[in-house]
Amino acid sequence: MIRHIRLLALCVFVAGCQRVPRDAQEASSRATQVSVINALMLGQYDGVVSIGELLSYGDFGVGTLDHLDGELIVVDGRAYQVRGDGRVLSVPSTRSTPFATVVQFRAQDSLECPKANALSELDAFVAGSTGHANSFVALRVETTFDSITLRSVDRQEPPYRPLGEVAKEQNEWTHQNVRGTLVGIRAPQWVSGLNVPGTHWHFLSDDRRVGGHVLDCTYQSATVRYQVCDEWLIKFDRSRGFDTLDLRRDQSAAVHEVESARRGQE
Amino acid sequence: MIRHIRLLALCVFVAGCQRVPRDAQEASSRATQVSVINALMLGQYDGVVSIGELLSYGDFGVGTLDHLDGELIVVDGRAYQVRGDGRVLSVPSTRSTPFATVVQFRAQDSLECPKANALSELDAFVAGSTGHANSFVALRVETTFDSITLRSVDRQEPPYRPLGEVAKEQNEWTHQNVRGTLVGIRAPQWVSGLNVPGTHWHFLSDDRRVGGHVLDCTYQSATVRYQVCDEWLIKFDRSRGFDTLDLRRDQSAAVHEVESARRGQE
Repeated sequence: MIRHIRLLALCVFVAGCQRVPRDAQEASSRATQVSVINALMLGQYDGVVSIGELLSYGDFGVGTLDHLDGELIVVDGRAYQVRGDGRVLSVPSTRSTPFATVVQFRAQDSLECPKANALSELDAFVAGSTGHANSFVALRVETTFDSITLRSVDRQEPPYRPLGEVAKEQNEWTHQNVRGTLVGIRAPQWVSGLNVPGTHWHFLSDDRRVGGHVLDCTYQSATVRYQVCDEWLIKFDRSRGFDTLDLRRDQSAAVHEVESARRGQE
Repeated sequence: MIRHIRLLALCVFVAGCQRVPRDAQEASSRATQVSVINALMLGQYDGVVSIGELLSYGDFGVGTLDHLDGELIVVDGRAYQVRGDGRVLSVPSTRSTPFATVVQFRAQDSLECPKANALSELDAFVAGSTGHANSFVALRVETTFDSITLRSVDRQEPPYRPLGEVAKEQNEWTHQNVRGTLVGIRAPQWVSGLNVPGTHWHFLSDDRRVGGHVLDCTYQSATVRYQVCDEWLIKFDRSRGFDTLDLRRDQSAAVHEVESARRGQE
């Protein structure tokens, strides 16, 4: 009954606001992504959605910039770029992204994670604690990291090479004793080809001077806040190139390598 | 520049309407689906979204009803059920759907399709004419069908059997010389597991007395109107059962059989 009253109230509201979707009330638990991972893997590095528009879909998330120009971290409604040389910059809203996933982050629960000697231990803790294996989950982890190993990639110019090739030249660095935030988007295993199965973790230090795609980390304890999403919105790349891509090809092994491998690892 | 002015106008508009997504201006080219096909294949037949809510996401589309109670056809903002016995009924907004895909249909182009001796000829015409192989495309085909072969399924009760098993008992019928509308949702080949790759066609006659999932058809000529979608929204099933399903298992061969096979065919 309350649901019906809410719906009625919303309909009245919507009637006064032309062409606004009626699902607006649920927008806060939606994972919105730009394009699909298999397009990025094939070298579709031109921006599809502006950073200004991306921030209207979410205040928290991960991705990359046009030209594959480093790692993108969205936290507290601000977008940060970690360039290939490790420098952290604020991203102008006029830049754009070829691939990113964001949510309007509203933590629904908070967990205390014990000591982790590797990123895989955080992944295991999260998988065991949050459930919802078939949903998107946004994860925000805050602590002081004893050690954190990060990577970023150098800006590319057309004609673009596939991501599997570019990632072999990624730059890596390790920081000790740094306090900051892990921004994680966990996608179900069955999103293969569309997003990154498992958790895609990026990091930004509290002083905004250190960041990147997380390859590994250790800490004594950490606070994990999370939000389960009940909607998944994909915004397609409408460029001509997109419709000619073979997105059906299984690139899951290459995606896994790009997301987790250190340079020189196969 | 015009885009920037539009965005600015939208921002001003949005500022006055709390929590309305800023992508509202593009809502009309969004394909919205309820749950994923692999969940339906595994027997998740309980409703996830009410028909009333579904109609707020789109006025045109295909799906099924809770309890797998026949075929669902949404056309011109109204929902119709074709029961297992072939009877066509208007669907109350309080019923619900475990799987459906809808759009707000606004034709962007119209094509004249020549004589077709089989549904596969319509599929080939559409694939060759509309392009956008990596996007969702909504298709509305109107003509008098020389012949159309339809099917529907009988309402199921828990514990539900998998769809591959239930579909073997589907009811089929062929009508001659019937005028009506094909409602089609074409999904890219790479949505396997999430939606039905290729075009999912349902039919409703102009007199609303004949309908169902289309297995085959012939006609002399037909008008095809279509709309390419630039967004794809999936509304997840939030029941406990959903998160325990193995949605990663490849069921594509079974999906193809359920969508296209006549009874007794393998």
